[in-house]
Amino acid sequence: MYPLLDRIESPADLKKLPQEKLAELAAEIRQFLLANVSRTGGHLASNLGCVELTLAIHYCFNSPADRIIFDVGHQAYTHKILTGRRDRFYTQRQYQGISGFPKRSESPHDAFGAGHSSTSISAGLGMAVGRDLQGSDSKVIAVIGDGSMTGGIAFEALNQAGHLKKNLIVILNDNEMSISKNVGAFSSFLSKKLTGNYYRDLKKEMKELLEGIPAIGGNILHFARKAENSLKGFLTPGALFEALGFDYFGPLQGHNLPHLIEMLENARGLEGPVLIHVMTTKGKGYQPAEENPALFHGVGPFDVATGKVTAVKGGAKSYTGIFGETLVRLADDDPKIVAITAAMPDGTGLTPFARAYPQRFFDVGIAEQHGLTFAAGLAADGFRPVAAIYSTFVQRAYDQVFHDICLQKLPVTLAMDRAGLVGDDGPTHHGVFDISYLRHLPEMTLMAPKDENELQHMLKTAIYADRPVALRYPRGNGYGVRLDQEIAQLPLGKGEMLVDGDDVAIIAIGCTVYPAREAATMLAERGIRATVINARFVKPLDRELILATASRTGCLITVEENALQGGFGSAVLELLEQEGVTGVRVKRLGIPDRYIEQGPQPQLRADLGLDAAGIAASVEAFLSQKNRPTLARIK
Amino acid sequence: MYPLLDRIESPADLKKLPQEKLAELAAEIRQFLLANVSRTGGHLASNLGCVELTLAIHYCFNSPADRIIFDVGHQAYTHKILTGRRDRFYTQRQYQGISGFPKRSESPHDAFGAGHSSTSISAGLGMAVGRDLQGSDSKVIAVIGDGSMTGGIAFEALNQAGHLKKNLIVILNDNEMSISKNVGAFSSFLSKKLTGNYYRDLKKEMKELLEGIPAIGGNILHFARKAENSLKGFLTPGALFEALGFDYFGPLQGHNLPHLIEMLENARGLEGPVLIHVMTTKGKGYQPAEENPALFHGVGPFDVATGKVTAVKGGAKSYTGIFGETLVRLADDDPKIVAITAAMPDGTGLTPFARAYPQRFFDVGIAEQHGLTFAAGLAADGFRPVAAIYSTFVQRAYDQVFHDICLQKLPVTLAMDRAGLVGDDGPTHHGVFDISYLRHLPEMTLMAPKDENELQHMLKTAIYADRPVALRYPRGNGYGVRLDQEIAQLPLGKGEMLVDGDDVAIIAIGCTVYPAREAATMLAERGIRATVINARFVKPLDRELILATASRTGCLITVEENALQGGFGSAVLELLEQEGVTGVRVKRLGIPDRYIEQGPQPQLRADLGLDAAGIAASVEAFLSQKNRPTLARIK
Repeated sequence: MYPLLDRIESPADLKKLPQEKLAELAAEIRQFLLANVSRTGGHLASNLGCVELTLAIHYCFNSPADRIIFDVGHQAYTHKILTGRRDRFYTQRQYQGISGFPKRSESPHDAFGAGHSSTSISAGLGMAVGRDLQGSDSKVIAVIGDGSMTGGIAFEALNQAGHLKKNLIVILNDNEMSISKNVGAFSSFLSKKLTGNYYRDLKKEMKELLEGIPAIGGNILHFARKAENSLKGFLTPGALFEALGFDYFGPLQGHNLPHLIEMLENARGLEGPVLIHVMTTKGKGYQPAEENPALFHGVGPFDVATGKVTAVKGGAKSYTGIFGETLVRLADDDPKIVAITAAMPDGTGLTPFARAYPQRFFDVGIAEQHGLTFAAGLAADGFRPVAAIYSTFVQRAYDQVFHDICLQKLPVTLAMDRAGLVGDDGPTHHGVFDISYLRHLPEMTLMAPKDENELQHMLKTAIYADRPVALRYPRGNGYGVRLDQEIAQLPLGKGEMLVDGDDVAIIAIGCTVYPAREAATMLAERGIRATVINARFVKPLDRELILATASRTGCLITVEENALQGGFGSAVLELLEQEGVTGVRVKRLGIPDRYIEQGPQPQLRADLGLDAAGIAASVEAFLSQKNRPTLARIK
Repeated sequence: MYPLLDRIESPADLKKLPQEKLAELAAEIRQFLLANVSRTGGHLASNLGCVELTLAIHYCFNSPADRIIFDVGHQAYTHKILTGRRDRFYTQRQYQGISGFPKRSESPHDAFGAGHSSTSISAGLGMAVGRDLQGSDSKVIAVIGDGSMTGGIAFEALNQAGHLKKNLIVILNDNEMSISKNVGAFSSFLSKKLTGNYYRDLKKEMKELLEGIPAIGGNILHFARKAENSLKGFLTPGALFEALGFDYFGPLQGHNLPHLIEMLENARGLEGPVLIHVMTTKGKGYQPAEENPALFHGVGPFDVATGKVTAVKGGAKSYTGIFGETLVRLADDDPKIVAITAAMPDGTGLTPFARAYPQRFFDVGIAEQHGLTFAAGLAADGFRPVAAIYSTFVQRAYDQVFHDICLQKLPVTLAMDRAGLVGDDGPTHHGVFDISYLRHLPEMTLMAPKDENELQHMLKTAIYADRPVALRYPRGNGYGVRLDQEIAQLPLGKGEMLVDGDDVAIIAIGCTVYPAREAATMLAERGIRATVINARFVKPLDRELILATASRTGCLITVEENALQGGFGSAVLELLEQEGVTGVRVKRLGIPDRYIEQGPQPQLRADLGLDAAGIAASVEAFLSQKNRPTLARIK
C-alpha cells in the first residue's frame, strides 16, 4: 500500500533511499497521514506542512545520536512514522496508544518531550552544552514554528545561545501562523516581502548616504543611526537573529527537498548557533487543510474525500461556545469589558467577540505571561479584562497571576477553558492542577460551574466581582440545559444544595456535580440517602453550608477533576481543621498523584472513579468502613 | 539641609524649578539617598544610577495622569522622593514603613507595582490600549533595565507593542548589568561600540555593494542577504528594536539632564511605540558603589565615608554560603554536576562554583523559564544540573517545572534559596508559596533542611535522587552548627524525631524546626510534654512516622513558613484522610491567606506566631480546647 514507506523502520532505512525517491516517499507519508488522522483525529495541518522538512532532517542527521527536538510537538507525526512507530501510528492520541506529541518514554528518537510551546531552543541549548562538556560531536537540532517563536522563553534561549556560541541548529518552520493567523511585530517582520523596487531604492539610499559620509571626524553615532534608518527598509528577517548572535540562512522553500537537504548538509559543518528559516504551507498537499488550516490544526475524524469533519458530538453547545456568546452579551452592555487570547481566538470561543468588538479584542500571540500582565495593566486603568486561556497554559503565567494580578487585587477574569481532563492531548494538556496552583494565592476567587447555564452566571459574577477571579470549565459540550435569559451575579462564596440526604454528603465542584447527583440517585436505589452539594466556589468556600452539612451527616465526600494534592478536597479538610472539627469523616475523590495519559474523557473519568458509578462505589465503600475504630488503620 | 529638595512635595513642585537647577537637585537627591540608604539598607547602586533620568521624566511628563512604570522597581527611590514620600523615606523597607518598590496602594504615582522583573512593557501596553479606548491623550512610560529586557515577557510585550502601534514610550535604562554583569547576546549587541573606522569601512562596503546591484532583474533575495551581511557590522542596537516595530533613539548619556529633557520633550510628540536607549552608570556619584555595583545593588547599612558595610550579622555562615561551598565539594567528585543561575551568581552563592568550574557554570540572565528548561536539556543527556533560584523567582518557571522537568522525570535539582519570609523586600519576594505550587506535581520530591548541616546532606540527596527534587532553604544565617565532614545521602521521605513526648506532637519543616524544638522546651516548663518531629520531606511525607505519632499523641501541630493553603500542613491532613484516620486533632501553623508586608524576619515570625513563643502559645491554646465536643463549634 505504501511501497517506500512500508520498508522504513528507522531513520537508517530512510538513508538507504536515493534522494530522488524522497518526493515519492513524501507523497506516501501524506497519504498515510490522511488515512490515519481522518480516523483518529489529531493535528493534521501542521504535520502535512512539514513532511519534507522532517524527511530532510532525518536524511541529513543521525537520530538518536543527533538530537532532534520538535517544539510543541504537534508537527512530529512524520518523525514518529520514520522512527519505528508506523505500525502503532493508528493508535496515536487513542486510549493506551502512542502520544500525539514527542515523548521521551516512547522512543529514544524523541530527544525531548513537548506539548506546550517555545521550549525547544532551551532544551537544545542544554543538550549542546552537555555534548561539548562530554566532548562528543553530535548535532542538536531544534525545530520551532513561527508562532512558538513569540513565546518569551524562546527569546530567552536565543539570547543565551547567541552568547554561548555553541553549535546549535535552530530550524524556524515558518507557516505564518501558529494555531490561527500569527500576530505581532516579529511575525510581520518575518513575512516582510521584498518588492521589485528593491535594487532601485537601495541604490538611491546608498548613493545619498555615500555622499553624506564625512571625510574625516564627525559624529559617528549620529551618522550610524542615519545610515541604519536609511537602510532599515532593506533589512531581511535575518537582521533580528544576526543581532542575537545567530548565523541566519533563508528563507528556504520548505517543500523543496533538494534545497532543504543541501542546506542541512551544509549546516552540519557550520560552527556556532545557526538559524535556518524555512517557509512551509500548513496543510500542504491536502486542499481542504490548505484552505482552512485553523480548522485542520487540531481536528476530529473527517472524511478525506470531502474534507467534512465527521459530526460525532451531540447537539448540546460546548462550554467554549457558551462562554464566547455570553461574553459578547455582557460586552454589549459594558464598554469596559475587553478580551484577551494567547493565539487561540477559535479554541477559546472568542471569535464572536473579536468580530463584534475588534477594538476591544487582543490576541497577544503565544505569550500567556505578557497576556496576563497586559490584562493587569488594563485593569489598573479601570477596564474589566477577561483573559481566556486554557487551564494548562495559564501555568505559563503563574507568576503574573501572583505578582501582577492578585498582589495588586486587580479585577482580571481568568477564563480557564479545558480545566480537568481534556482527553486525547494527554498529560501535557490536562488542566488538573489549576485549583492547586491558584487556591493559595491571597485575593484570588476561584469558581467552577456545574453546567453551561451556571457558566453564564459565573462569567458575569467574575467580571463584576471587582477582584481577581479564576473561572474553570471543562472541555467539551454542556448538558444542553435551558439557558436563563437573564444573566445574574451569584453570591460570592455560596454553594447550593441539590439533593438532601442524611447518610452522607457529596460535595462536588464544577463538572463533577452532575455525576455526583447521578451517583446520589444510584445510591438511593441502594438505600443510601446522600446530600449533594454544588460547591460553586473553591475559594472562598461556603463555610456555613459545608460545616452545617458536616454536622448533619458526619461524613463528607469531595469530588473534583483536579489533583488531590492541594485541591478542592484539601480546602475542605483545611476548613474543618481551622474550625476545630474532628469528628467528621472525609474522603476526597479527584486526580491521583500521577500524570494521566490520553484517552476519551468518559474513559479516563471511569478509570479514575470520577463518573457517577465510580463516585457511587466510593461512597458505598467509604460508608461501609464507617464504624471501624478511627485509629485502627494506623501501622 | 536639602535647599531644593526640601521644597518638593510633588512633581508639580519640580516643574517650578528652572532647568538649570536640576543638576543641583540631583546632587541633593544623591546626598539624601546616601544618608538614608546607608542607615536602612536597600537598593543603592541602581537608584544612584537613575537620578537624572527620573528627574527628567518627572520634569517632562505629568504623573499621575501620565503613567510612569518602573520595571522591577528597585530603581524608583528618586521617584518616591519626588512624589510625596520624602518625609517617610527613612521608613523605606522598614517594618510598617514604605515599600522599597512601587506599590499602587502607596501612591497614585505608582502606576503599577513591581518587584519581579520584565513586566513594565506589558503593563504599559495595557494602559496605552486602555487610554486609547477611553480617548485620553495621556502618555505611558515604561522604564526598564537592560537586565530586565532579557526576561521573555519583555520580548513578548515588545512583539505586541510593535504590532499594535500604540503610543508607548519604553526607556531602556542600560547600565550594562542587571544585578551582576549582564550576559547574553542581547546585551553584547546593546553594548556594541562604534569604532573610528566606521566611515571608512562603511564607504568601502557600500561602494562594493553599489557595483554589485544588477541593472535589472536578478535574485532580489540573494542580493538582499548579501547587502545585509555586508552592512550588518554597521547595525546599531536600534536594528533589533526597529525590527520589532519600535522607533529607536539613542544611546543617550543618561546623566546629561539637558539631553535627556530634550529627548523626552520630543518623545511626548512622537507617534507609535518608541524606545529610548539611555546609558547610565550604576552607583553614579558614589565611588564605592561605582566601583562595586554588585555589592551596592542590594546593600545593608553601611558607612558613607568608607563604603564599608556595617557588620551586623553574627558569625554563623549563611545558608546561601553553605549551599555554594557544598556544591563545589560535590562537584569536585562528579563532573556531571553543573550549576545554573538566573543573573544572581552572588545572591545564590554560586560564585565559588563559577570560579572553580567555569565550564560547568551557566548564568542564563534574568530568564528563569529558559534556565529550567535548559537544565532539563542537560539532565536529559545525563548531567546533574542544580538550578539555584530564589523561591519567589521559581514562580516564573512553574510551567517549566511541570512540563520539562517533572513530567519527564528529569533529575534537576531546584535549589530554592530565600524560601519563607525574606524580610525587607516584602510581599513580592517572600518565598511562601513554593510548597503549595510544587507539592501537587507528580514525580516531585520536596524537602527542607532544619539547619545548615542538614542542607549539606540534602543537597547531595537531591543531586543523587535521580528524579526532580526541589530543596527550599531560608534567607539568612544558619545556626552555626558543626558541619559534618562527610556529606551523606538521606533516606527519601524519612523524617526524624527530635524530642519525644506524649501530650502533643509538633511536626515542623525547614526553618521552623528549631523554633519548634525551643517551643517544646518552653512547653516542658509548663508541664506539657511535646514530641518534636523534623519532617525533612514535604513530599514524600514520612507516612509511618507521622501516623505512629498521630496514633500515640492524638494531637498534631504542623509548622511551616509557607501558605496554609495547600502547604505542608495540608499534606498532613491529606495523609490522615487517605489513611482513614479521623480521631486525631490537627492544628496547622503557617502563613495565613494574605500577603505579608516587609519587616525583619524575627518581627514577622513573631507577628505570625511562627517563632518559638508563638508556637508554644498555639500548642497550649490548642490543648486547652482538647476536650471540647468535636462538632460543637459548628454554626
